[in-house]
Amino acid sequence: KKKNQFFLSFLHCIKQKKGRYDPKVLIHSIKVGIALVLVSLLYLVDPLYEQVGENAMWAIMTVVVVFEFTAGAVLSKGVNRALGTVLGGGLGCLAAMLAQEIGGIGRAIIVGISVFIFGAAASYSRLVPSIKRKYDYGVMIFLLTFNLVVVSGLRSEEVIQLARERLSTIVIGFSICIITSFLIFPLWASDELHCSIVTKFENLARSIEGCLEEYFEATDGKKENQVNSSSGGYKSVLYSKSKDETLANFARWEPWHGKFGFYYPWDKYLHIGELLRELAASILSLKGSFQPPQQACEAFFGGNKVFPLFVVLIRLLSGPSSALLRLSVKEPCEVVSSMIARTLRELGDSITNMTRSRSAALIVAKLQLKRTELRVAMLASKLESDDGLEIATLVFMLM
Amino acid sequence: KKKNQFFLSFLHCIKQKKGRYDPKVLIHSIKVGIALVLVSLLYLVDPLYEQVGENAMWAIMTVVVVFEFTAGAVLSKGVNRALGTVLGGGLGCLAAMLAQEIGGIGRAIIVGISVFIFGAAASYSRLVPSIKRKYDYGVMIFLLTFNLVVVSGLRSEEVIQLARERLSTIVIGFSICIITSFLIFPLWASDELHCSIVTKFENLARSIEGCLEEYFEATDGKKENQVNSSSGGYKSVLYSKSKDETLANFARWEPWHGKFGFYYPWDKYLHIGELLRELAASILSLKGSFQPPQQACEAFFGGNKVFPLFVVLIRLLSGPSSALLRLSVKEPCEVVSSMIARTLRELGDSITNMTRSRSAALIVAKLQLKRTELRVAMLASKLESDDGLEIATLVFMLM
Repeated sequence: KKKNQFFLSFLHCIKQKKGRYDPKVLIHSIKVGIALVLVSLLYLVDPLYEQVGENAMWAIMTVVVVFEFTAGAVLSKGVNRALGTVLGGGLGCLAAMLAQEIGGIGRAIIVGISVFIFGAAASYSRLVPSIKRKYDYGVMIFLLTFNLVVVSGLRSEEVIQLARERLSTIVIGFSICIITSFLIFPLWASDELHCSIVTKFENLARSIEGCLEEYFEATDGKKENQVNSSSGGYKSVLYSKSKDETLANFARWEPWHGKFGFYYPWDKYLHIGELLRELAASILSLKGSFQPPQQACEAFFGGNKVFPLFVVLIRLLSGPSSALLRLSVKEPCEVVSSMIARTLRELGDSITNMTRSRSAALIVAKLQLKRTELRVAMLASKLESDDGLEIATLVFMLM
Repeated sequence: KKKNQFFLSFLHCIKQKKGRYDPKVLIHSIKVGIALVLVSLLYLVDPLYEQVGENAMWAIMTVVVVFEFTAGAVLSKGVNRALGTVLGGGLGCLAAMLAQEIGGIGRAIIVGISVFIFGAAASYSRLVPSIKRKYDYGVMIFLLTFNLVVVSGLRSEEVIQLARERLSTIVIGFSICIITSFLIFPLWASDELHCSIVTKFENLARSIEGCLEEYFEATDGKKENQVNSSSGGYKSVLYSKSKDETLANFARWEPWHGKFGFYYPWDKYLHIGELLRELAASILSLKGSFQPPQQACEAFFGGNKVFPLFVVLIRLLSGPSSALLRLSVKEPCEVVSSMIARTLRELGDSITNMTRSRSAALIVAKLQLKRTELRVAMLASKLESDDGLEIATLVFMLM
């Protein structure tokens, strides 16, 4: 049943993908295929096989496990794996030799105790957030290698020989990964992060426009579907935190390439992402406040009409002047929203081109003026003024 | 250098942890230690070793890789691994036999082509979101096993024998994981998810209170630190989406236990989490709007005093009536916020005890009344009314 489900979802995705085809994913798949064929040569070519023997298995394992989507991820995972193997192998050899010195039944006891202590300590450290984020894979490999070496030491005499051979095949696998990943159409985590930030600006700009449009055209009832589909981008922005952090983590590993130099300030990208998420949160609550209160009430009290009095009361209080006010406020609101959207797009473009935006300051000045206008125009209590102000505050913070 | 950094951060965490000691993490570490010792017995005890031989390695590998924090995660990863191994081993055997039938140089070509095709296809499917979420590990193991079996088939004659032996040791490793994870102090993903949702209610309740308190006491300048520390919880709620989804995914794997039956509605937990995140977004934007506009302006224009005119203009418009209004609005706002906080806590408690909350409806009625009062009291444009309304709308949606 599970298997069936798997194939169904796979077929479904293939079908969906036909329309919006992503060349990067295809490139990555082909690269994995190439790396696997290269590493299989260790088995396929006789002279190579005579050199490495059965240990070629470890090279295959390394390629399958380490080959990630972006170059930075491959490097980070590979270095983690190498460090974990060296450390685990070294400590494992020491423990195995200590056990062999003692001999007899004490040998098994020493091995058991060291397995327990290192296993518990490594598992504990894997749950510490700061280690989990960066070294999770390395610690796992450390534990794995340590265990394999220390227990194999009981059975075969040449522990060090064994560890050395495995390590060398892992290095072969790692080199194949690095060569394939860096030399054939490299996919950089830095580019991904850069694009993801730029896309966020565009998404938010569209969301703000779509949001206001939806509000003012809710009475007409037309174009609802089209607007809904275009204004959902803020949600993807809101929940992009962990993805951005992973990308930044990998981007730090990548060497100088393209427009990104050494010590490129990836933290600033994270900071901008954080501010954009705050803006997305504002859009979310702006949308929440658009739902007219009486509608919310009816949805709530729909089942059991216990409090009709409140509904009437609220409708009386919020209903009458609403439509009129909405009309009077429509024009300045639309101007403000389109200005905010333009500012966001401008900022996005300036990040794309890596130039300092000159016109942004001017737009902000205009925005200020318009906002003041909006404030003066409405002395009556209305949603828009304050939310516009809120967004403006955030746009300020962005610059 | 990397290694040093690693140890430093490890020591730092140990030091930090001394204060807030989490028994669950310790239990998990000890369980991993026990499972590893159990699986090492395959090497340590002579009769067992005679049975499995060198393949005991695969059992150790299974334990290290599959043993996750929660029982559901262990089950899910184990089943993924088993399915991936069976499928990959089966297809690998078929491909190896096909290659053997052909023989000669054609053998190597068949192996190379099949490695490339399966490698590319599996990597492609691992990047499809719906597969990545649930079967990522299984696909990786499928690819690994397929490659190992198909290339080993070139060198050893008994491919099927090899695959069968490895599979049986993997089953041994998996059984050890399941036994240790389910029978010794099981840590359930369902409990984690349940607690995480309940904690969210409490966090948001404290954030709302802290937020308003901060706003009204900003002029006094006292108690700032204490308030700041208590009102940051909404951010952790906002960014909890992926963690919740992972937990729900694992919780679905867990068998009947404790208060959770079969087909427990985990989707509802995700839905509640979603609504709470929306509420957290409102709190975030509420906090953003608390920053007085003139302060934001000054922060922006602080460096180059180009637009002092605007600053004066805005201060004139927003300054005068502010303090007075703030006083008049303080009492109803505080009542509303404490009511919302009480409602949230009540809802959290009712989820903890798994009972239907009776008083919630009553509180909502009171809240309605108070909100109406708030609206009547302030006809002038002020932030609080609308944001209070916004929060109320969300509280409505929650029930």
